[in-house]
Amino acid sequence: MLKNIDLSLSMTKTEYKSQIDDLYIRIGELQRKAWKMRIPIVIVFEGWHASGMAEIINRCLMGLNPMGFRYHVTTKPTYEDLKKPLIWRFWQDIPAYGSIAIFDRSWYSRAVIEYFNRKGNNEQFEHCVERINVFERQLADDGHLIIKFFMHITQKEQQKRFREYEKKIIPLCVVDEELDYLNEYDNYLPFIDQILESTHRGYAPWTVIEAEESNHATVKVLSTTISMMEAHIEKINDKTLKPFKDTISSIDPSAPRLSQVDLSLKTEEDEYEEKKDQYQERLGELQYELFNQKIPVVVAFEGWDAAGKGGNIRRIARKLDPRLYSVEPVGVPNDFEKNHHYLWRFYRKIPEAGHITIFDRSWYGRVLVERVEAFSKEEQWKRAYNEINEFEEILTDFGTIIVKFWLHIDENEQLKRFKERENTSYKQWKITSDDWRNREKWGEYSEAVDEMLLKTHTTHAPWTIVEANDKKYARLKTLKTLVKTIEKEL
Amino acid sequence: MLKNIDLSLSMTKTEYKSQIDDLYIRIGELQRKAWKMRIPIVIVFEGWHASGMAEIINRCLMGLNPMGFRYHVTTKPTYEDLKKPLIWRFWQDIPAYGSIAIFDRSWYSRAVIEYFNRKGNNEQFEHCVERINVFERQLADDGHLIIKFFMHITQKEQQKRFREYEKKIIPLCVVDEELDYLNEYDNYLPFIDQILESTHRGYAPWTVIEAEESNHATVKVLSTTISMMEAHIEKINDKTLKPFKDTISSIDPSAPRLSQVDLSLKTEEDEYEEKKDQYQERLGELQYELFNQKIPVVVAFEGWDAAGKGGNIRRIARKLDPRLYSVEPVGVPNDFEKNHHYLWRFYRKIPEAGHITIFDRSWYGRVLVERVEAFSKEEQWKRAYNEINEFEEILTDFGTIIVKFWLHIDENEQLKRFKERENTSYKQWKITSDDWRNREKWGEYSEAVDEMLLKTHTTHAPWTIVEANDKKYARLKTLKTLVKTIEKEL
Repeated sequence: MLKNIDLSLSMTKTEYKSQIDDLYIRIGELQRKAWKMRIPIVIVFEGWHASGMAEIINRCLMGLNPMGFRYHVTTKPTYEDLKKPLIWRFWQDIPAYGSIAIFDRSWYSRAVIEYFNRKGNNEQFEHCVERINVFERQLADDGHLIIKFFMHITQKEQQKRFREYEKKIIPLCVVDEELDYLNEYDNYLPFIDQILESTHRGYAPWTVIEAEESNHATVKVLSTTISMMEAHIEKINDKTLKPFKDTISSIDPSAPRLSQVDLSLKTEEDEYEEKKDQYQERLGELQYELFNQKIPVVVAFEGWDAAGKGGNIRRIARKLDPRLYSVEPVGVPNDFEKNHHYLWRFYRKIPEAGHITIFDRSWYGRVLVERVEAFSKEEQWKRAYNEINEFEEILTDFGTIIVKFWLHIDENEQLKRFKERENTSYKQWKITSDDWRNREKWGEYSEAVDEMLLKTHTTHAPWTIVEANDKKYARLKTLKTLVKTIEKEL
Repeated sequence: MLKNIDLSLSMTKTEYKSQIDDLYIRIGELQRKAWKMRIPIVIVFEGWHASGMAEIINRCLMGLNPMGFRYHVTTKPTYEDLKKPLIWRFWQDIPAYGSIAIFDRSWYSRAVIEYFNRKGNNEQFEHCVERINVFERQLADDGHLIIKFFMHITQKEQQKRFREYEKKIIPLCVVDEELDYLNEYDNYLPFIDQILESTHRGYAPWTVIEAEESNHATVKVLSTTISMMEAHIEKINDKTLKPFKDTISSIDPSAPRLSQVDLSLKTEEDEYEEKKDQYQERLGELQYELFNQKIPVVVAFEGWDAAGKGGNIRRIARKLDPRLYSVEPVGVPNDFEKNHHYLWRFYRKIPEAGHITIFDRSWYGRVLVERVEAFSKEEQWKRAYNEINEFEEILTDFGTIIVKFWLHIDENEQLKRFKERENTSYKQWKITSDDWRNREKWGEYSEAVDEMLLKTHTTHAPWTIVEANDKKYARLKTLKTLVKTIEKEL
C-alpha cells in the first residue's frame, strides 16, 4: 500500500486557511449527529516516527468538541498491561456509543514491537494480526466506524526531521517509545506494508496520508474522516436488513446437554466434610503455584436461580488468599457499561497473570437472559456465540485457564428452594419477583442453555455441567473439577 | 495504642463455630441496610507482616455479598501512581455510595514506606499524616463510615511465622511489598504507635486486633464492624441537624471581585495576531520544559455562559503537543460519578507529572451551579470552599502549577452573543434553554462568584479574572497569564 504514493503533495497556507474552517464546521456537525445516533467511532493514527503525527492530530482536534472524544496515546505497556493479553488495554479504551476514540499509535505499533521486534516469531505475529482483525471486526459488527490512517514520509525526510529535532528542545520521545523502532526505515518498510495489506478490510480500511507537508496531510485526514462518517451514517439510515451469517466454525459433538444430566447424584455428609477440606486445602496450595507461574484462572458460574452459585463460590474461596482472587458478580449492566460494546465490561474484569477471578454469572448472559428477555436483538445474541469463543480464545492464548460451570437443578428442587428462602427471614432478600418470573420461562431458558452448551463448548474452554439437586454433591464436583483442571495445566 | 494489649486472647474452634454464622447473618443484613441508605463504608486493615491479615480478611468476606464490596490490595505504587500525589490512588478506590471498600494495607503503609523509610524527613512525614487526616475527614464529612484495624502480634510470634512460611510454599510477598518493612519490628513499633495515635480521630478511630490467634481476631473484626455500622446507621437516622462550622482559615483581602473589573479593555487586531502567535509558540516550548521537569499544570476555566471558554481553550491548545495535554470538559456528573464523593471525578482527571490538563468548567461547579440551582445542600457547598482549597493544596504540594480563570462579560455582551448563536446555523447547538434560564439568575450567580473568589483565592492557587467583553483581549490575557505563571515556576 505504500508504493506509488505521491509524497510531493502539498498545500499552500492560503489554500489551507480557505478550507480549514469549513472542515471544522462540517466535522463538528457530524460529531453531533454521530452523538445523537450513538455511533461509536475509532480513529487510528499510525505512521513513521517524525511523520508529524502529533501536530496533525492536534489540528484535527481543534474541530471537535472535547465533550465527545478521548485521545489515547499508546506508549510502552505498563506493568499492569503486561499481565493481560496485548489487546486488553485497547479494549479498555474503546469509545462509548456516540463518542470518538482517537489512538495516537495503537495495537499496530504494539503488535510490531512486541511480536516482531522482540520475539521474532513469524507465526505468532500472523496470529496476532488475525487477532487484530477479529478485534476490529467485533467492533464493526457492533456498529463502530473504524478509520485508520498511516502517515507516510520518505526516509530522507525522516532523517532531515530527526536532525531538526536535535537542534530544538523537543524531546524526541515524549511518549517513552522504544528507540529501536526509530531508525530502521528500510527494515520496517516491507513489513509495515504487509501489515497494512493484511488488515485493510472493508469494515476497517487504511488511508495512507502523504505527510511530508502538514497542511495537505491535515486536510486529507479531516476530509477522509468526514466522508467516512457521512457514508457510515447513510448506511445506518438505510434500514435494509442484512441476513445474519452464522460464523460458528465447528461444533463439538461431545458438548453436554441438559437432558443427559443425572440429577439424582448425591454425596453423604461424612464424605463431603472430609473431601471438601482436602480440596480446599489443595486449592489454596495451587493458588500460590499459579501465582508463581503467572497463570490466570477464570471460573465462570452460570445456572438456574437458586441452583447454589453463591454457596459454591464461597466453598471455593474459603481457603484462597484474597490478594490473589476476586469474585465478580455480574448483574444488569450499569449506564456506563450499557454505553459500550457488551464485552467491554468483562474485559475490564479479567484476571491478571497469577490471579483467579470467579464470575457469578458472566458474558453468557448475552445468550441467556438477554436472548430470552429480548434485551438483545436476535442478530446480536446469535453473533455472540462466536464473539464469546473468540473472547475466550484471547484469554486462553495468553495462558488463562478457563473453567465454566452450569449448575443444574430441576424445577421441583428450585420451587423447594424458593419457598425455603421465603420462609427464612435472613434469606428473604434473595428471592424476588424476578425469580418467579424467570421460572415461568423454564422451557425457553432450557433451549437457550442447550444452544449455549452446544456452540460454546470448545477445547480451550469446555463446559462442565454440575448436578446440583444435592448441594454437597455439587460443591464437591466444582471443587474437584477446579483442582483437577488446574493440576492438569500446571 | 499498642501498649497494654493482651495478645494472649484466643477463641476455641467450637466457640468460633457457634458465633460465626450469626455474625455473617448480621453483617449481611447491615450490608443490605447500608446499601439501601447509600452509606459508603471504608474498612482499613493495617498490621505487622505475618499477622495473618489476608486470612482474617478472607474469612470476613465470606459474610458479605460480593455485589456490594470491593477489596483493594495496596501494593507498590505503579509507574502511573508515582506521577500523581500519594493519596491519588486511594481516591480512585473510595467506595460508591452504599458500597464497602476494603483496603488490605492502605495510605498508612504507603506513608510509612514513602516518607519515613525513604526520605526520612520528619516534617514531611507529619505533613503527610495531616493530609491523611484531611482525606479521612473529607470522606467522613460526606457520610463515609471509616473503620480501621491494626493487626497486632509480638515480634516473637512474627519470627515464628516467618520460619513457618519458609517451610511451606507460600510466597511471603505475594503482593510485591517492600522487604525492608518486614524485619524491623523494633524500629517500627514506636513509630507505628505514634501514627496510630495521631490518626485516631472520632470520625475514623483505630481498633487494635489481637491477631496471634485467628478465631478471636476474626470475631473481633466482625463484631467491631457490626457495632460501628449499627452506630453509624443510628446516627444517620437521628435527624437532629448539627450546625455547619465554617473552617476557612484565612481569607486573602486582595482576592479579586467582579465589581472591580474593567470590561472596556480591548486589543486591536494587529497586536492580537502578533502576540497570540508569540505566546502560542512560547507555550509550545514551555510544555516540553514542563515535561522534562515533570511538573504538572492544571488550568481551570470558569466564566459566564458564552464568555468564550471554548475559544480561549482552543487558542491555548493550538500549538501544544496532544500527547502532553488534554481538555477535560466538565458537565453534569454521570450516574457513576454521582455515586461518589463529588471530588472523586476530579481526582480521576488530574494531570500526571509533566502534563497539562485544561478544565472547561471544574470542581467550582459545587459552589456555583450546584449552589444556585440547589443541587447541593447548603452545608455541602459551604463545606466545599475548604475542601477545594485542600484539594488544590494536595496538587500544589506535589508541584502542580494551578492557574484559575474567571472569564467575565456583562449581561449585554452575553445577550449579544446568545443572539448571534441563535442566528448562526452551525452555532445553534451551543445555545439551549438552560443558558437563557441561567441568565435570569445573573444576580445569584454574581453573588456565588464573588464568594468563591473570596474564599478560594489562595497563594498556592490564585484566581485571575479575565475581562472578556473583547475576545481578543481575553485570549491574549489567558495566554499571557499562563506563559508568565509557568515561566515564573520553572
